[in-house]
Amino acid sequence: MRDVAVVGVGLHKWGELWDKSLRDVFVEPALAAIDNAGVDHIDSMVVGCMSGGLFAGQEHLGSLLADYLGQAGIPASRVESACASGGLAFRTAFMEVASGMSDIVLAGGVEKMTDVSGDGATYALATAADQEYEVFNGATFPGLYALMAVAHMHKYGTTRDMLTAVAVKNHNNGSMNPYAQYPFKTTKQEVEESVMVASPLRIMDCSPITDGGAAVILTTVDIAKKLKKPIIKVIGSGHATDSIALHSREDMTTLRATTLAAERAFKMAGKTIKDIEFAEVHDCFTIAEIVVTESLGIFPAGKGGEAALRGETGLDGKFPINTSGGLKSKGHPVGATGIGQIIELVKQLSGVAENGRQLKKTPKIGLAQNMGGSGGSTLVHILEVI
Amino acid sequence: MRDVAVVGVGLHKWGELWDKSLRDVFVEPALAAIDNAGVDHIDSMVVGCMSGGLFAGQEHLGSLLADYLGQAGIPASRVESACASGGLAFRTAFMEVASGMSDIVLAGGVEKMTDVSGDGATYALATAADQEYEVFNGATFPGLYALMAVAHMHKYGTTRDMLTAVAVKNHNNGSMNPYAQYPFKTTKQEVEESVMVASPLRIMDCSPITDGGAAVILTTVDIAKKLKKPIIKVIGSGHATDSIALHSREDMTTLRATTLAAERAFKMAGKTIKDIEFAEVHDCFTIAEIVVTESLGIFPAGKGGEAALRGETGLDGKFPINTSGGLKSKGHPVGATGIGQIIELVKQLSGVAENGRQLKKTPKIGLAQNMGGSGGSTLVHILEVI
Repeated sequence: MRDVAVVGVGLHKWGELWDKSLRDVFVEPALAAIDNAGVDHIDSMVVGCMSGGLFAGQEHLGSLLADYLGQAGIPASRVESACASGGLAFRTAFMEVASGMSDIVLAGGVEKMTDVSGDGATYALATAADQEYEVFNGATFPGLYALMAVAHMHKYGTTRDMLTAVAVKNHNNGSMNPYAQYPFKTTKQEVEESVMVASPLRIMDCSPITDGGAAVILTTVDIAKKLKKPIIKVIGSGHATDSIALHSREDMTTLRATTLAAERAFKMAGKTIKDIEFAEVHDCFTIAEIVVTESLGIFPAGKGGEAALRGETGLDGKFPINTSGGLKSKGHPVGATGIGQIIELVKQLSGVAENGRQLKKTPKIGLAQNMGGSGGSTLVHILEVI
Repeated sequence: MRDVAVVGVGLHKWGELWDKSLRDVFVEPALAAIDNAGVDHIDSMVVGCMSGGLFAGQEHLGSLLADYLGQAGIPASRVESACASGGLAFRTAFMEVASGMSDIVLAGGVEKMTDVSGDGATYALATAADQEYEVFNGATFPGLYALMAVAHMHKYGTTRDMLTAVAVKNHNNGSMNPYAQYPFKTTKQEVEESVMVASPLRIMDCSPITDGGAAVILTTVDIAKKLKKPIIKVIGSGHATDSIALHSREDMTTLRATTLAAERAFKMAGKTIKDIEFAEVHDCFTIAEIVVTESLGIFPAGKGGEAALRGETGLDGKFPINTSGGLKSKGHPVGATGIGQIIELVKQLSGVAENGRQLKKTPKIGLAQNMGGSGGSTLVHILEVI
């Protein structure tokens, strides 16, 4: 396998983008990534999108978006793993470059979620859960994560305070991110008085519905050197699955696919969690961030909440988590989220994160964890400046 | 890149499978493929599906189907390129093995199309066309292919007789395929008196709505040798896109993405069309087969219809096309179709095609062409017995 690096990133402000079409939402960051990389062409393109069909009545997105990007003709694929579609696009593009099949590949993600009416978004998102066994019986994602939260509280004594700490931290970080959907700070009181969605999860425990796109350019380390770019190498890629139905799992208080994907990424990288300096993780709900930090091995099982409460995951903490603001503040356009995480890693590793959220000591190695549904799929990537 | 071979295939009878769920439709052929390959595990899985969301209210299919297959934990992806999703799954799995990322990968495809009510299937299929520019204005796929047929007739003098010859041939071949949805022979009179769908295309010019799955196992040539399998090597893989909207193309009588994908596959294989002995092509409509045979270079532009009428594409012809019965007779479960084509290549190359449709001289090299929408994406694969 050839060595692969990320040489360009493109993002736009996420939010409720009613004045932009699905095409615009993708093409704007894709052009920005190509420009940022300084390449004169792309050989191929992979787009992550969870449900073009249900959110926008449009499948066949690889071809549609390549055409709108002015690249009709190139191989262009769409990949899907629910909310981990962006991470899957990154891995697929990584394999394409690593294999020698293509030299310069754009990995992008997109979701246009606000154009559906009524409960259309809730229905579309619920197709990431087990339709026949969970959704048919009334489960929605806030409900499924609420079950995980209650189980975690029961088993480990995780508290309301700890969930709140995650939301307050991520909004603090996101307030410094010019691309965030909700770039405002929040307080303990605001979070704990916000409307209840599925007990114990309140609206301020939940990531929002978002329109957004994101794109990065991958190429070989050799080509990256010729582009005179800082070499941000993809040293680990791990992908794992689990039953998508919560009730089929042995333990609801851990995320097996996250642990497995991380093990695979670490093995490829020849690293352990001790080598990682910061991470972007999939905080679709506050409880998710806590469980993920435990499943990754950053904190022992049952200790993620306490660590968040003590500020260990803050910008100045021992292990900063979601310096971008996370899904909570930055937004969660499901197909684009995984690519957005990679972009934050690249910014932090390059020392260019905006508005004061850059880590004081520019890190050399970071990790992104992107998951689908209630953890039925997970992608973990490790990037290192070499 | 490592050399890659197909070592196992699995199929079941396609049709209106109201007694089977989406999961069953996939897992049955997946288990058959694993059994046929004689492997004791798979490292990874890629599933092609066009619209799990619109046809079955279920996305996140990689994880769901891996779990139902008893393989929760492995990396499992879903890829989509409309009706070329199966071909894309095959290419993605090929890259994964070629790259060294995984040794044994299952490439599958599935679509459960008959569980939607009313015009649900027509709406879902139309998401392979340009929703904003074509579908919004009333276009459906029979309509789009009818436009191509009229243009081809006008430019080249293609006739009703020639379209009919494709349907009669494919049903003749399909009558010998135990897995075909419509394994009956038909006649010129039956085709030409069948109900009009979109002039000049009649119902017997159209492939059906189908429930079906298919799976193959890919591994390295080195592992294939240890399995003591005939070595059916993937010598070429080509992928190309075009505008998915017909009106954006320079010429409606040719398929540019097919020509481009074939050029790329031939380049990788070090072959030309003259080296190919037979092909499975994407006859979603009779006119499609004619245009594809021209775009692949099997026949000169405008001569595909005459060749079909002369019997050159029959089982005993100079260049047999769709020995399986094609989409027309075998059925067209859109996500599975591309994998079904690969299975027919493997059977013919192995000399085991059922019920008298095996080519008299067992071929050494064959080609599969699978396309999305009205040709907005195309995958071409070339397999050779070595």
